[in-house]
Amino acid sequence: MPRSLTEFEIIERYFAPLSGREALGLLDDAACLSPPAGFDLVVTKDMLAAGVHFLPEDDPADIAWKALAVNLSDLSAKGAKPWIYFLGLGLSGREDDQWIADFAKGLEQAQQAFHITLGGGDTISTKAGLCVSVTALGLVPAGQMMKRGGAQLGDAIYVSGDLGEAALGLQQMMAASYPDTGAFIKAYRRPQPRVTLGSALLPLVTACADISDGLLADLGHISKASSLGADLYLNHIPVSDAALSFVKDERKFRQLAATYGDDYELVFTMPEGKEGELFTLSKDLGIKITRVGDITGGDEIRLLDQNGRVIPVEHKGYRHH
Amino acid sequence: MPRSLTEFEIIERYFAPLSGREALGLLDDAACLSPPAGFDLVVTKDMLAAGVHFLPEDDPADIAWKALAVNLSDLSAKGAKPWIYFLGLGLSGREDDQWIADFAKGLEQAQQAFHITLGGGDTISTKAGLCVSVTALGLVPAGQMMKRGGAQLGDAIYVSGDLGEAALGLQQMMAASYPDTGAFIKAYRRPQPRVTLGSALLPLVTACADISDGLLADLGHISKASSLGADLYLNHIPVSDAALSFVKDERKFRQLAATYGDDYELVFTMPEGKEGELFTLSKDLGIKITRVGDITGGDEIRLLDQNGRVIPVEHKGYRHH
Repeated sequence: MPRSLTEFEIIERYFAPLSGREALGLLDDAACLSPPAGFDLVVTKDMLAAGVHFLPEDDPADIAWKALAVNLSDLSAKGAKPWIYFLGLGLSGREDDQWIADFAKGLEQAQQAFHITLGGGDTISTKAGLCVSVTALGLVPAGQMMKRGGAQLGDAIYVSGDLGEAALGLQQMMAASYPDTGAFIKAYRRPQPRVTLGSALLPLVTACADISDGLLADLGHISKASSLGADLYLNHIPVSDAALSFVKDERKFRQLAATYGDDYELVFTMPEGKEGELFTLSKDLGIKITRVGDITGGDEIRLLDQNGRVIPVEHKGYRHH
Repeated sequence: MPRSLTEFEIIERYFAPLSGREALGLLDDAACLSPPAGFDLVVTKDMLAAGVHFLPEDDPADIAWKALAVNLSDLSAKGAKPWIYFLGLGLSGREDDQWIADFAKGLEQAQQAFHITLGGGDTISTKAGLCVSVTALGLVPAGQMMKRGGAQLGDAIYVSGDLGEAALGLQQMMAASYPDTGAFIKAYRRPQPRVTLGSALLPLVTACADISDGLLADLGHISKASSLGADLYLNHIPVSDAALSFVKDERKFRQLAATYGDDYELVFTMPEGKEGELFTLSKDLGIKITRVGDITGGDEIRLLDQNGRVIPVEHKGYRHH
């Protein structure tokens, strides 16, 4: 059934209820924000296209969730708290009214989970593929934003949570032999950006990035911006018991976990000797934090086995778009 | 020739030179902004798709210019000065390296014309149509943003510049019988948002909108948000001598000028008795300003001929997406 609602009706029925007071009821084609004193504004923009970042037949609520979540992950990596977001929705013409309703539902779920409201945006027809563009604004105490370029020689490298579950989820979806409700598939479809951890790390870390392209690739961004190298230890790559009991080859899986991406965990660097504070933080927030390697001289990212031998890996994250 | 550059190379070669210091060299996937005290932040987001808002074979520099210009027009309608913008570029895969270079050139030209820099963004492949999403941020003195909802009964309605030239340009392009360099085609391809006028109007007007969907449709937005009606006088619709000497039927052309859109002029409302200040402003800025009608009770937008008779028109602007 084709879509019967006009752009104006879509906005009024589905998007206006998601909007904060800054959006002025979405009547003005612009939002008016009063940034609080003492804060910097962190702005990030990620775009997703059907057939590249999701499949056109995916649940629209999942597409919406992920479009917002990946942007909030970028904010978290800067230590910024989510504030407000703007949505560009390019419809292909194949989405019906129910699709729009489900998409709005996914946005609402993500808004509630991560405490952010809609500020405005634009809904258009693309006459081609479905395309979702989100611009997210976050707040961070003035001058304190975490950057990729701050790592120091000798810093330790840490990762939050477990890696590799989204990769398993994608494999399962491709194989189509698993129910769509498995935990790995959920990890892929409904990533959980580390919004609380991000701002809590502000006083501790020297550099931070989120893991979207893969740990090696995203650590590569830190490495490049900091003009330093890094050694990662394969056996320290954090993986869950659920994943280990599922996979056949642990070593191969840890390699996948180190390279695949889509985990939206944080990788960050910190001078040695602050482990105590980090341990307390990890306990308070209930978030696993693992030391996975060290910042080194040079400009190389190396993945090492337990004997210190370099494991050759393809940094697929660098070119996956 | 297919594109040979990766996303990272595109960013480094073409987009980093366009970025302001807030963009941190585009190395961080996020910008860090320090909004000046005493200002509100106005945010707008317009998305353009090939085949809908432009043709895939259009000059990439024109596509880039227009994508930025339409967003700056939204800011101008709020009285906000352009500050920084974010770009989402969804490439279809048919754009080669030269296309990217030309697109960046168009951005650069618009940046210089309207004093704004690139803050960041995302470049992706859509595997479908070309899609451009811009989020623009502007600054306005705190609490003073012009809205659509402020018109008062008895206010006079004004329009900047001349209307209808972009409509003629599009007709010429469709007919393909005119050189691509004509003034009307340029009006369509390279709209000039009223960034100086917008902020100058702040102390004078009660409501403002830019004319993108067509004067009647955009005045309709003011009418709806202000819960009032409006009468427009066909003979007062501002059109240029160049346009009048080109068209065959003046009355029909003024109707087109009142309904078509894509002019990116401003329509605004003001209490009677401030014409003197407005005249001075118009002279100082060298921008023609014409009184075109009056705000009325009710909720109807009426276009009237010189005998006060209602001219039936199709409000095509409302549904053109």
